[in-house]
Amino acid sequence: MRYIISITNALCGLIFTAGLAAAAPPTDQELADLYAEPSPFESVPRDQWIAESDNAYVIRDHKPQAPVHLLVIPKQRVPTLLQASPELLGEMLDLARKAAKQEGIARDGFRIVINTHPGGSQSVYHLHMHVLGGRQMTWPPG
Amino acid sequence: MRYIISITNALCGLIFTAGLAAAAPPTDQELADLYAEPSPFESVPRDQWIAESDNAYVIRDHKPQAPVHLLVIPKQRVPTLLQASPELLGEMLDLARKAAKQEGIARDGFRIVINTHPGGSQSVYHLHMHVLGGRQMTWPPG
Repeated sequence: MRYIISITNALCGLIFTAGLAAAAPPTDQELADLYAEPSPFESVPRDQWIAESDNAYVIRDHKPQAPVHLLVIPKQRVPTLLQASPELLGEMLDLARKAAKQEGIARDGFRIVINTHPGGSQSVYHLHMHVLGGRQMTWPPG
Repeated sequence: MRYIISITNALCGLIFTAGLAAAAPPTDQELADLYAEPSPFESVPRDQWIAESDNAYVIRDHKPQAPVHLLVIPKQRVPTLLQASPELLGEMLDLARKAAKQEGIARDGFRIVINTHPGGSQSVYHLHMHVLGGRQMTWPPG
């Protein structure tokens, strides 16, 4: 079953992404504009946090792509993975796996995804790590 | 263009993963067996490393899913994300973004993916982080 899913998913990937090059690289000004966009994460009420550490917290994605789809977000905004300290990144991954255990998806399995800049499909320029599980994750990863 | 790709990719996801629950959770023995499998990463010659830090190194994925597809791997084997120290995880993400810059995909954008256990599609039980770029990454992420 997993094999069939992999094959069909791979075919989909081929059909819809073959020959699709990344768009032109963003200019410095375009990146600055993206980095300056308001962050919707800053207005999430604290009672929607389902876990937290000293410098990060966890909420549910409002457009879930799996039965469990969490976001791990730094309390102090940094726009992308490129600006975060290694210490913060380690703390966020540690919090991500704790949240996966808390949500009961750690044993079955889960996927962590971090998108950077437009070619990586980053949608919000407030660093966040996706944690997805509760279904079989397929390959390629988008 | 990106919009069309997102829609078609989302439809593919719906068609091929709708209703697909994760397989039965692995038993303790099944996990122990997976953790004990030989790691193909331990036999990669050092001259194939394209970057390294104190405790991790970077190679190219031999089944690339994007024009640039790298793997960040700890020098001392740990089976999954669940066993790594936060310090090692921070160091690996730091190395991942350095490698992305080195390969020229940081400005356009890239995606980092970490699979844990069978439901997350982990294939090799020697922790590794995928770094993908050089094309538009789509959503959902597998």
